[in-house]
Parts: sequence; C-alpha cells; structure tokens
Amino acid sequence: MKVNAQRLLEDLETLAHIGRNGDGGISRTAFSAEDAAARQWYKDRCDASGLELRCDGLGNMTAGLPGSWEKPAIWSGSHIDTVPSGGSLDGALGAVAALECVRRIAEEDLDLTHPVQSVVFADEEGNYSHLFGSYGLVHGYDTSRLDSMAGREGDSLATALQDFPWRTGDIYADHRIDPGRVRSFIELHIEQGPRLEAEGIAIGIVRSIVGLGGGEVVFIGRPDHAGTTPMTMRRDPTRAAGAFLTRLAGVAASVSGDAVATCGLITLEPGGTNVVPERAHLSLDFRAPDVEQVDALARNVTRIAHECAAAHNVECEMRLDPAVQPVDMDAGIRDHINAAARRCDLSTIIIPSGAGHDSQNLAQIAPTGMIFVPSHDGRSHSRFEHTDPDLLVNGANVLLEALMSLAR
Amino acid sequence: MKVNAQRLLEDLETLAHIGRNGDGGISRTAFSAEDAAARQWYKDRCDASGLELRCDGLGNMTAGLPGSWEKPAIWSGSHIDTVPSGGSLDGALGAVAALECVRRIAEEDLDLTHPVQSVVFADEEGNYSHLFGSYGLVHGYDTSRLDSMAGREGDSLATALQDFPWRTGDIYADHRIDPGRVRSFIELHIEQGPRLEAEGIAIGIVRSIVGLGGGEVVFIGRPDHAGTTPMTMRRDPTRAAGAFLTRLAGVAASVSGDAVATCGLITLEPGGTNVVPERAHLSLDFRAPDVEQVDALARNVTRIAHECAAAHNVECEMRLDPAVQPVDMDAGIRDHINAAARRCDLSTIIIPSGAGHDSQNLAQIAPTGMIFVPSHDGRSHSRFEHTDPDLLVNGANVLLEALMSLAR
Repeated sequence: MKVNAQRLLEDLETLAHIGRNGDGGISRTAFSAEDAAARQWYKDRCDASGLELRCDGLGNMTAGLPGSWEKPAIWSGSHIDTVPSGGSLDGALGAVAALECVRRIAEEDLDLTHPVQSVVFADEEGNYSHLFGSYGLVHGYDTSRLDSMAGREGDSLATALQDFPWRTGDIYADHRIDPGRVRSFIELHIEQGPRLEAEGIAIGIVRSIVGLGGGEVVFIGRPDHAGTTPMTMRRDPTRAAGAFLTRLAGVAASVSGDAVATCGLITLEPGGTNVVPERAHLSLDFRAPDVEQVDALARNVTRIAHECAAAHNVECEMRLDPAVQPVDMDAGIRDHINAAARRCDLSTIIIPSGAGHDSQNLAQIAPTGMIFVPSHDGRSHSRFEHTDPDLLVNGANVLLEALMSLAR
Repeated sequence: MKVNAQRLLEDLETLAHIGRNGDGGISRTAFSAEDAAARQWYKDRCDASGLELRCDGLGNMTAGLPGSWEKPAIWSGSHIDTVPSGGSLDGALGAVAALECVRRIAEEDLDLTHPVQSVVFADEEGNYSHLFGSYGLVHGYDTSRLDSMAGREGDSLATALQDFPWRTGDIYADHRIDPGRVRSFIELHIEQGPRLEAEGIAIGIVRSIVGLGGGEVVFIGRPDHAGTTPMTMRRDPTRAAGAFLTRLAGVAASVSGDAVATCGLITLEPGGTNVVPERAHLSLDFRAPDVEQVDALARNVTRIAHECAAAHNVECEMRLDPAVQPVDMDAGIRDHINAAARRCDLSTIIIPSGAGHDSQNLAQIAPTGMIFVPSHDGRSHSRFEHTDPDLLVNGANVLLEALMSLAR
C-alpha cells in the first residue's frame, strides 16, 4: 500500500500558493490571514475525505475519522506556518503527508488496532514562542505566560487570536492534552541540511534533536580615533573578535563532527567608520546531539573567547543562555521507521536533527520518531528550499508504512 | 610676551558649558542653537576687546582690529562646532587661543607689518560636509552642491542656515575668499592621539596631515541554517572576516609605523543568531602621511582581503573610495613654530596628524602649519578629552610667538 503520490504533490503545490510573496518566498506567519487561509484549505481537504477536524485553544488541529477520538491514537503531523519568506516544504511536507496517510488508511478501510490521526501544530516557527503549539499541548501554559507573549511585530498573542478568523477553542482552558491520548508520534520533515543529498541517501532516521546553547560574547577594548591612535597603542576588540571567529569551527570540530557553532550577528560600538570600536558583540549559537557535547561546547567557546581577549589585551564578557537539552528519539519508533524503509526498498542513515521540531515536545508524552528526506543543497527557511517530488513521495510512503505497523 | 593664561582658560571653561549634555559631553552641531549661542559668546568676547567680527555666507567668522581688513593677514584659528557628545578642546582650543593671541597683540599695541586675525571655520566636524567651511572658503561650492547638502538628521543645509539665528552672509554669493587675503595660517589643536603624552613632549609640529583611504570589503558566502549545516559544508564569510581582522594591524605595520588601518563597522547579512551569514560587510579606514603609503595600504588591504576569502572558500568584493591625498605643512611655518617653541623653552617633535583639519584646506592658498599639544590618554571626540591647563597655555604661547614672528 502506497500514498496517492499525485494527490500528495498537488496538495503541497496548492498549499504553497497560500501566502506566496512576489519573490517566490512564502509568508504564513502563525495566526495571520494567510495562516487562516491555509487552515481553511486543510479543513476543506479533511471534509472531502470524510475526516473530522478538531482545534484546541492554542490552534493545534487534529484530523481523524469520526469515532476515532476515544482511543489513544497514533499521531503524525507537523506545521503549516512558515518563517517570513520561507519555503514550501518546511512543516508543510509533514502536515500534508500525515493527512495523506490518514486519508489512505480511511480509503482502504483497514482494520487497525489503534486509530491514526493527522495533526497540525500551531506557530512552530515561534512568532509568539518557540514551538508554541506543541509546547503548550504537552506542558501547558499558565495565564500570565500566555498574556505576556508577543510576536515579532510587537502584537500580543491574545489580540492575534482574538482577531484570528479561524475558530479556536478557549486559549486558557483548552490546550493541555491528556498524555494518554497519544500512543506514539512520527513527524516527516525535510532535512534542512545537505547530508542526505551529499551521501545519496533517501531516508534519514533521526537519532536525536540536538541540544542548543548560545548567548553572546562581548570583547571590550578602548574607543579611539581611527586616525590619531597608532596601531601599537590600540586596544581594539575587533582583533580578539577576528581571532575568535577563526577558531570557532575548530572548537566545534574538537567536540564532535556533529557539533556546530555559529556567529550570525556582530555589532561594534560605538560604531563609526573612523572610530576604533570599544566593544564587539558577537552572537553565539552552538548545538550538539549529546548533553556532554553541548556542555563541552559552552566550556570551549568560553575558553577560546578568554584566550583571544588576553592575546589582544582586551576584556571579555560571556553571557550564555540556559542550554536546551538534546532529546533522543524513541529506539522502538526508529526500528519501525527503519523496517518501513526496508520494505519500501529505500536506503537509510541515522542522523541528528540540527533544528528544533515539535517532535521534541511530543517526545515528552509519547514514543516519538522523525523521518527526514533530502533537502536540495541543504537550503531551508528560504524560497530556495527544494526536494525532488520522488524523494518527497518516498518519505510519505515510509511514513505510511511506519504508521500502519504502529497501528496494527 | 605671553598669553593671558587665566583669561584663556576661563574662556575655554565658559565655552565648554555651551551645549554641554547631562553626561558631560558637548554637542554643538554646526548651525544648531548651541552653535549660535557659542558664536554669540565669541562675538561678545571680540566686542569686549574692541575687535571687529565678520562672517561669510558659509558661517566662517574672522575677528580682527578695525582697519586691519585691507592688508593680507596672518590667520590663526580652528572651529567651535563639535561632534555629538564631543569634548571641550577639539576645535575650541585653537579658536579661543587664536582670539587670545589677537587680543594680546591688540593690548600691547605692537607695530606689526602684517595684521593678525582670528578665524572660526564653520562645520569642521562635517555634519553637512567634511571640513565644510574651510573647504568652501578655499575652493568654493557651486549652487547645486550647496543645495544637495544634508545633515545626519536628514535636514538640508539651506534650511538649517535659513533657520539659523546667527546672521551669516549670502551662502551662494559670499563665501570664496580672495586667496591673496591670507598671508599664512597656523592652527593650534590637541593631538587627539597619545604620542606627545607618552613621550613627554610639550609641542608637536605637524609634518603633514595624513592621506585617507577607505571603503568597504564584503565577504560573500552562503546563508545556511545554523543548526542543520555541518561545519565542513559551510561557506561562512565570518571566517574570512575574522582572518582579515587579525591581519589588519600587520598590514599597517608593513607599510609604516605611522600607517593605521581600522574596521569600525561590521554588518552580517541576513543577520540572525541562528543563521550562517551570507555576507559580512566590514568598513575600512586607512591613513598614512605619504601618498605612496596610502596607495600601498590600499593594495595590501585588497590583497589580504582576497587571500582571506580564498582561504575560506568565500567571495570577496572591495569598494574603495577615492583617496584623500596627504597634505604637507609648510616647511617655513614649521621653522617658525620650532623657533617659537625654543624661545618658550619647550620640547618639540615632528609628527603627522592622523585626523583631518581645516589646515589641509588653508594649505592650498597659504603657507600653513599646525601646533599640537598633548591629549591625555589620546582621548578625543568624547567627554574624556582632556589636556592639563599648563600644556594648553604652552601651546597658546608657542602660537603667539610664531604669529608675532610671522607678522613682524
């Protein structure tokens, strides 16, 4: 039994037109008009297949056969919101493929022990809060936390939901799920990295979702006139910052081949072409699949920052955010996915996920796994996001096989 | 014959209160209310000493004895505008000391061959244009150039002058000077660098005002997800930028001990903590006292930028502005200053000026020289600008001696 490849790809194509910008990027910010339009489209697709759609107070939507709501269910899904000017697959693939699997199971009228349901999590991209919907569904939010949430435009979550044309439940009362309702969870997603394509592998079985550390390092020297201060008398923080940037890749490599470290923002103060800066602020983002590696990254990044500062006669201040711990995917679910890929005659590797996903929240209440398909050139969060249709269908077929083996 | 030290220092102190901010910095932007107040104070001081004050269409002011206007004059002066939150001496010292010299000469009723006049140049700090007043006075501006000038707040020069309570002449018709009017020019200024203080020298005799090059280097890689792109597969422009920053001091040193090179602004694009940047923009400012050295700096900075880009598998684009050529101070004036310092029993060294000054424009029409006094800790363009009063008085006495020897 296979997914209906044509329907799957047509659905992805149709969804990709909702919120599309002039440059080809897609903007479907959570709780925007575009998000509402995408939800209405999704509901129409459910209606067309005789599926019932439910929505909780946070905007998480679940689709299943009528009468399937009483028993613990096998869940699959992802999200349909996007980053500003994002791509057509991040989230959408997993959401549409899950719907396709539930439709196929309904069409075949299979006699399964456990119902299979399709889920769409709200605001995965975190306009209001990181993995907003799945976090609330699993952990719950208190009223003050919800009331304090604001989007990147400064708008409050409460107002956004009030103005949202899509009908959600009571945000405060109706969002935390009974953990017993979810028997297991699988999310299909594009890799968003270049490994599967580079190695010619069809299916990535996610071992863990990486742990994440970060913050800021500030090198502090002395502001001086760029014309009148001899080079030998300067305390220029850009020298330490430069040395630090050249060593960052080495720090990651010394911890693990899976570890990454990134500086994505630099600000010099006071900031003028003719001023030797007093301060260089560098943002830090570092990730690794194991707790020990995240800790080692934090230690080593801190050590080289101080070494670079000392070598160039400037001060150094580190501000590290509390680390987000890595989350292991369930070994049993990984076996189900692996067996499913074998039955589909597709190659697999075990890889970490370098990005955060709703799966890391679902893993707290149910055995959870993730399936990756290749991302062309590793591009994501941009209009250049692309995966060949065959590879998308492969992923959906492995998902269907895995869901059916779990549901029997 | 000496300056009236108490009057000089009191005048500097009084002027320092015009435009002073809460934090002790001074903001007297050209053609602001604070600039007008400072000019009114300056005129009152001229009136008190029986000096006549004239103002041209650009706001350049000249003070001299009545009847001194017909003969070519020895000029001395500087500016009374400041950078935002600047110090009390940059410009003010040279303007007030020149006034003091003219006053002392008037008081002594000396029979000099050439009149000595005190000048205040408009907008030296270039809110509207670099060395605005002295450039226009020497080179002239055409109407369209004047009409196109705008300040950092976006206000047009024409509007600023229209609203300026201080009465200037006709901006278009009345600004370019008859070159024969200025016989020679000396500007007293704080060093704005640390050399005189570090070497314990009272008087710097400026050899030349450095040449200035600059622009921007852009390292161009590939934007990637900071979590999902392995370190070995990245084309991260911050690595090349880091290597470049660590080599910049070496480039300057390889050209000359007087050469400097500075990066004061860095922007990463797209710019997010969780994005490997596509582009790193670095501003460049490099200076040297000789034309050949400025050219060598431009060549070497370009070469290492391309080397750093190649070493880290990114592209590199250089945009270099046309260089401002170094300006030599007049050898004869330097001799006058040196002899004056000897008569005052003060130590001297010959040094380059790393900053731009109105003297570089005046040098185009008259033999010109500059006298530097030490800057504590080299600080300038900030509220920390400071020079001990004795050292200020030294500079004013050397200026007076030099002006009198020129005027005899």
